Formats: sequence, structure tokens, C-alpha cells
Amino acid sequence: MFILACSQLLMIIFHAASGYNYTTNYITVPVDHFSYTNNDTFELKYLINDKYWDVNKGPIFFYTGNEGRIEDFCDNTGFMWEISREFEALVVFAEHRYYGESMPYGTNSFDDKEKLGYLTSQQAMADFVDLIKYLRDDSLSVGKRPNPVFAFGGSYGGMLAAWFRIKYPATVEGAIASSAPIWQFTGMTPCNDFYKVTSSVYRNASAECGLTISASWKAIDKVTESDSGKTWLTDNWKLCTPLKDSDDVARLKYWATDVYVALAMVNYPYEANFLAPLPANPIKEVCKSMTNHTEDDETLLMSVFHGLSVYFNYTGSTKCLNLSSAFSDDMMNGWDYQACTEMIMPLCTNGGEDDIFEAYPWDFKSYSEYCENRYDVKPTTDDVEKQYGGKNLKAASNIIFSNGLLDPWSSGGVLKSLSSSIKALLIPDGAHHLDLRASHPNDTSSVIHARKTIKHWITKWIFDYRYRK
Amino acid sequence: MFILACSQLLMIIFHAASGYNYTTNYITVPVDHFSYTNNDTFELKYLINDKYWDVNKGPIFFYTGNEGRIEDFCDNTGFMWEISREFEALVVFAEHRYYGESMPYGTNSFDDKEKLGYLTSQQAMADFVDLIKYLRDDSLSVGKRPNPVFAFGGSYGGMLAAWFRIKYPATVEGAIASSAPIWQFTGMTPCNDFYKVTSSVYRNASAECGLTISASWKAIDKVTESDSGKTWLTDNWKLCTPLKDSDDVARLKYWATDVYVALAMVNYPYEANFLAPLPANPIKEVCKSMTNHTEDDETLLMSVFHGLSVYFNYTGSTKCLNLSSAFSDDMMNGWDYQACTEMIMPLCTNGGEDDIFEAYPWDFKSYSEYCENRYDVKPTTDDVEKQYGGKNLKAASNIIFSNGLLDPWSSGGVLKSLSSSIKALLIPDGAHHLDLRASHPNDTSSVIHARKTIKHWITKWIFDYRYRK
Repeated sequence: MFILACSQLLMIIFHAASGYNYTTNYITVPVDHFSYTNNDTFELKYLINDKYWDVNKGPIFFYTGNEGRIEDFCDNTGFMWEISREFEALVVFAEHRYYGESMPYGTNSFDDKEKLGYLTSQQAMADFVDLIKYLRDDSLSVGKRPNPVFAFGGSYGGMLAAWFRIKYPATVEGAIASSAPIWQFTGMTPCNDFYKVTSSVYRNASAECGLTISASWKAIDKVTESDSGKTWLTDNWKLCTPLKDSDDVARLKYWATDVYVALAMVNYPYEANFLAPLPANPIKEVCKSMTNHTEDDETLLMSVFHGLSVYFNYTGSTKCLNLSSAFSDDMMNGWDYQACTEMIMPLCTNGGEDDIFEAYPWDFKSYSEYCENRYDVKPTTDDVEKQYGGKNLKAASNIIFSNGLLDPWSSGGVLKSLSSSIKALLIPDGAHHLDLRASHPNDTSSVIHARKTIKHWITKWIFDYRYRK
Repeated sequence: MFILACSQLLMIIFHAASGYNYTTNYITVPVDHFSYTNNDTFELKYLINDKYWDVNKGPIFFYTGNEGRIEDFCDNTGFMWEISREFEALVVFAEHRYYGESMPYGTNSFDDKEKLGYLTSQQAMADFVDLIKYLRDDSLSVGKRPNPVFAFGGSYGGMLAAWFRIKYPATVEGAIASSAPIWQFTGMTPCNDFYKVTSSVYRNASAECGLTISASWKAIDKVTESDSGKTWLTDNWKLCTPLKDSDDVARLKYWATDVYVALAMVNYPYEANFLAPLPANPIKEVCKSMTNHTEDDETLLMSVFHGLSVYFNYTGSTKCLNLSSAFSDDMMNGWDYQACTEMIMPLCTNGGEDDIFEAYPWDFKSYSEYCENRYDVKPTTDDVEKQYGGKNLKAASNIIFSNGLLDPWSSGGVLKSLSSSIKALLIPDGAHHLDLRASHPNDTSSVIHARKTIKHWITKWIFDYRYRK
């Protein structure tokens, strides 16, 4: 379950409202775009703002929604909003089917394989094609308009943005794929790279921090060997539910591992609000208390607890530590299913030198069993490679892959430019899709530069679209 | 029904065996590649010959099968066979699902929408991806091999070859799309272009030939006004079933129209065997008897009959003229369905100056009703454009579109090069996918040149694949 839990972490959603203005609309789309066995349709939600749009030539900035309600992505993609004025762009955020309100079969959408089976990236992109066609051609009484479309997306949404350009280059002129781990798949990236990057973030904060976390796993085991030790840890870590057995202890360690990953993803240079409020540069804060890995087990675990408190109790108002509230159910359901079908991203830890975690191998067999039992689907490992080309992107064009090198998901990202129009953009001190977020006074020069570069490329693509048909 | 009948004509299959040697194999593929509602699989047939294959670096020549049993395309694509030796290529012909033996639900495949709905070009191409992956990677014990793949196809198979490169450029390095009317869709090509090209072929054979056919429709109407006239035409045209009413007369005219189209498609410079044997340059033969369009109706109709006899009775052994045996049922079923879903190609005639036929408008409404009644599908006109980009092929590469300008289907073809790697190859005196056929002593210089050009491009693509990764 450890690995499963981790693959849930692809997208971190901030629950703070942004105050961006938009209209909420719906478009009717087919449930199945690729066969004719099923004539059902449903309403796909999208958010739209045409305040600055030059309808005669302005581009369409199209966010390819990912695994959550679209409002959250809208609120956390300030970059699109900020540049819409100078580009005279239409701003559109399209929800991904089976998330938020865009349920093909309403509250029954997750009932069985026959209803849930249409939750795929390919179907979602075909929804987007329909929406763009409607926005660009059909909704305007004057017929087709020369408005180039650019896809934006972060994390899984970034993967969709890139794949959208790869699969539908006649629909979308270019893609900004931020923190998009399109190579986090079988045979493309070693499964332990993800946790290696995570580990390096803590080790770089301080060597002692990495060593303390490394040492903490055995310390937890040793302390919780006895019942009194379990009670001690329950009391001192303020757990809402007491530790009873080794399963509870394992769950605690999974939770801590997830928190380390989550903190690395949102290691932003300013305060932010992820589930609960977080300080600026949270990993620096976490590591502040972890300064000596050679202390006795209980002292070491208290330093770890103080570090983790930054994540779950920065304001000091959390009464107890709840190990099961990391993600909303809505997000869990859809992504858990996708991670059992197309989106099988092998993750593992080696322990030892490679990372600061306990060793967990990638176990496809038991993962596969879980998926078969839960969803009646047999996971395959090559769907994404077959559909989107894997490492062979020679024929693709006009995609920017931006990655923060502090982001665990950069492990599966495109970190080297592949051609004159498939560009890698590195943000050495950036976390997960920082570049797509609104600008902030604390932004470092590298993310400011990244945003300038993206604007440069969009300008170039618009020029090409208008003058090099 | 006229227009429906014509859209059946996309591919003309020759039923002569070729004597090419191959092994017949089967691969298990999913019925649905794009959703997870249905775990069914079926056996897809393919023909394979590795006699000349250099397994370490030789390319794979992959025919993307179209609407018929694959053996027929194999037998009529001699060009692939002829060049396989010098390229040390693996030769593969993959059958299209729902044709030949490749039936997802056996003899029940056409029973209802739920079984037939998986008959789409997208699903067929995903089958091909699985097969190529198996041939290139999985079937060889040593892992992935550096064998570039090139798609070949004629007519609908040519459309698939082009779309295959467009959608799966990581799987297939280039495509030879012969006589592929990828633009014979709504909004891309005027609906009467197809019959304009057909007409020009007859007019170019001789002005009188075109004028005689033009005049024949009214002559048929006038002669068959009376019962004695119907009997006269039945007797003199040797119809197997007597003309009884105006529906029968209409059917006769549809049949003649189809024959004119079919002859234009197979207007090859050598004898060939299409359903029945045909002479070399059959249209020249047809037009030999049509020399005076001002003759009285009965004399004119006899000259038309002698012309049409070239098609249905070249050997003189046909006892009577059967108006309903033009196509095999197998081919009709699948393509009729495809023409009701994705492959809606509007065709119309204007009559008068534009063409040598009677005027028939394109009537989407009644066409749509037919499809809804027969298959419970609502035809849409933009599926192909949305999926494959329509006229916007800017982002595509490595496709050769070859077209014989005597081929009616050249009306929907790509006749101008679009970029340095999307090349149009014109064969001014060529008919339907002549270039893919085996070489023949009567071949004209233009088709010989076309084949040389194709070989040149394949050589270049192989070089790029090996040395410009």
C-alpha cells in the first residue's frame, strides 16, 4: 500500500481561493469518443474568462484539467491569469472527466467497470478537443477564427498538455507542460529515482536532516517493539488513534514518508496553504529540529516529530495527528483507478545510500492483484508508451517541459531539450509546478526567468501560427 | 442509395491470386483499446514473410489493412514484395478488424451496436501498434531491435497509413499513402469533385464518349417510359431481371454510374482481373463504341451497352447482366457501417457542365436517417477532422501521398507537397493506387518514376532513423 499511497501524490491541491473571476459553463460531450457502442453523453465543466480576449486573433490559453475539481487548478495557476492580458487571451480551465462535477454517470460514475472504464487520458483529451472546437469555431456566429490554442498544465495536467500537443497538433499549437513526469513509467525511469530526488532535497537542506530521517525508521521500529513504547509514541506524537500493532506502525511510517514527499513538492519560497497552512521554504523549517542523528531513539523521534509538525500543525491549532486525512476522497477515487489502468508509475525505495527511506521494492504482481480485485482491470505497463511514444518524441514539436529540480516528480520529467522546439526548462530551486503559480515577491530569479522564457516561446508560437502557415 | 453505393467503391479488390509466399499468423488484441469497460480480446490475422529480413537492422514494411480480407491486399501490393529484398525488409500485412477473419465477436460481430461499435479506424490502428510492438520487441528474445517501421497502404489503407504516422510517430517512421482521400470529408473538398474527376477521364478519352454518357441518362428515361421500352432495354442490355418500374430503372442508372467510377479506378495500362477480366486501358475500350451522342435513343443506348460490356462481359461468357453483384457482402457490411460513423464522405453530382452524370445532391439528412435506422448510430461529420487534423498537417512529417490523377479518389487526396517531409507524388496517367501494384512491362514512365521516388524516400528515412536519433 505504500507505493499506492505515493502514486496518489502526483498533484498537490491548494485549497485557498484565489479571487480570479470566471464564468462556469458546461459542454455536452460523448462518454466514449473512440467507439460507437455507447451513445451516452454528459456535461463537462469548464471555467472561462474572455475579459482580455481579442476574439479576432487572440490566443486561447487552455488548462488541461487534471485529477481534481477544476476550480482548484484554476486558483493555483495564477501565471495563466497574469499573462492573459498582455496576450489578449481567452482563459479556459477544462475539468477532467470523473473529477469535480464532470461525472459521466453522476453519483454512479464509480459504481462498476462499465461506468468507470471511460476514465482515461485519451477520452479526457477528446473531451478537450470538442470544447476547443466549440470555443474556437462553433460558438462564434462568424465561423472559424484564427485563434491559436496553447495547452497549459501542471503535474498530470502537464502530462496531458504535452500529450495533447503530441496527439492533436492540429488543435493545439503548443504546450506548457509544467512538472510533467511523462517518463515516470515502466522501462523509462528507474523506480527509485523519485525517492532519490526527494532524499536529495532533505540532504541538501542539511546532512544531519537526511541522516536523522534515515535513522528514524529503525528508531520507530525499536521504540514500538513494546506496548509501552507504542503508548509513548502515541502520546508524544499526539496521534488521534493509538498505535495497537505492527500494521499501525507501518501506517505511521507510510504517512511520514508521504509527508516528506508532499513537503518536497510544495517547498515554495513563500507561505502557502496546503490542506493546512505551511511556512515559506517548509523543508528548511522541518530540518531545523533535526540536527543530530546519533541521539537516542526517543530524542531522535521527538526531533522528527517537531519537524513533521511543520506540515500538520504549523499554526499550532491541530489537536491530534490524524494519519488518514491526507487526501480528499474525490481525488483518491479517480486517481487510484487511473493508477490501476494507464497511469502505472513504478516507484520504489532502495534504502541505504540511495535514499533516506526504508527499502520497498516495486511489486507489480501485488499491485496488479490489488487493481484486479478492486476494479476488475488488469494493469498493463505499456499503454502510455504505446499511445504517446515514450522516450521517442522525435516527431513532436512545440512543447516546453519545465521542471523544478527540488520536485520529486522531476525524476520522470524531460530535463534535456530534445530538439529546437521540444525544450526543457529547469528551475534549480523550484518545487512542483512553481512556474505556473502566481508571481510572488519571494520568487527566486530562476522561476522569474522560467516564466519569461515561457512567454517568449508563446510569442514565437503565435508568430509562427499567424505568419508561417 | 446512390451516394451510399458510391462510397462503397473506395477500394477495388482484385481477386487474382499472386503467388506471394507468406505465413498466416494471429495476434491477440483487446477489443477496446481506449476504455476499460470491456476486457474482451480477439485474434487479429496478419501475413508475414521474413525471407529477406535483416533482423538486426532491416526495416519492417507494414501494410495497414483496409476494408477487406488481407490476402487480397497482399496479392495486389506487389511493390512491397518487390522492394523487400533490396531493403532487407520484413513484410507484414495486417488485417483490419471486422474484415476477413479478424472478427472480434466471430459471426456475431455485426449483430448489434454493442458488438459492432468497435469498428473504427482508431481501434484498428491501435491493433497495429500492438502487432508492431510484438514483432519488433516482444517476439525477439534479445529485446528491442533497431528496426524502423514504414506503413504502406492504398485507398482507405493509405488513409490509415498516413493517419498512423500522424498519430503514432514513435511507432512508425514514415508512411506511403497511395490514393488516400484523407480530405474527402465535410468542409475539406466540394462534394462534386469526385465525379468531376471521373467525368474528365471519359471526356479525355474522347469528347464524344463524355457526351454520349451525358446523353444516355435521358435516353434511358425516355425509352423506359413505356412498358415496351422497358422490355426493349431488358432484352437488348441482356438484364438478368426484367425492368418493371421506375425503381428498377433508377437502379440500372446507379449501376451504370458505379461501373463508370469503377472503370476509372482500375484504368490500368495492362489486363487485370477485377471481378471479371478487364482489358488494358479499359476506358479507351469503353469509349470505342461511344462515338456519336446525337444518334437516336436506342442506337445511343446500344453504344453505351457495348461500352459497359467491357466491364461485365469482356470475355463474352457472361450470360446476363446482374445489377446487384458488384461487391462481396463481407466488404459491404463493414464499410457500410464505417461510412455511417467516422467515414462520412459527402459525394454529389451536379450534372450539366460539371460532370457526365445526372444531378444528385448530397443529402446528409436522409443519409443520417439511413444510418440511424440501420445501425443506431448518429453520423457526425467531424470525427476524422478532430482526430487526424483535417487540412492542418503542419506538425506531421514523413508521409508520401501518391495519387494517380485519373483516379476519381484523387479528388480528396493531398496533391501538393505540404512541407519538406509531407510530399505529394503525382502520377498523371495513373489510376487507383497503381504505384503499389507489382511492376508490369506496360507500366508508364510516370508510375516507374513514382516507385523510384518512394524508394528514395524510404532510403532517406532509414538513414535518418539510424544516424539522426
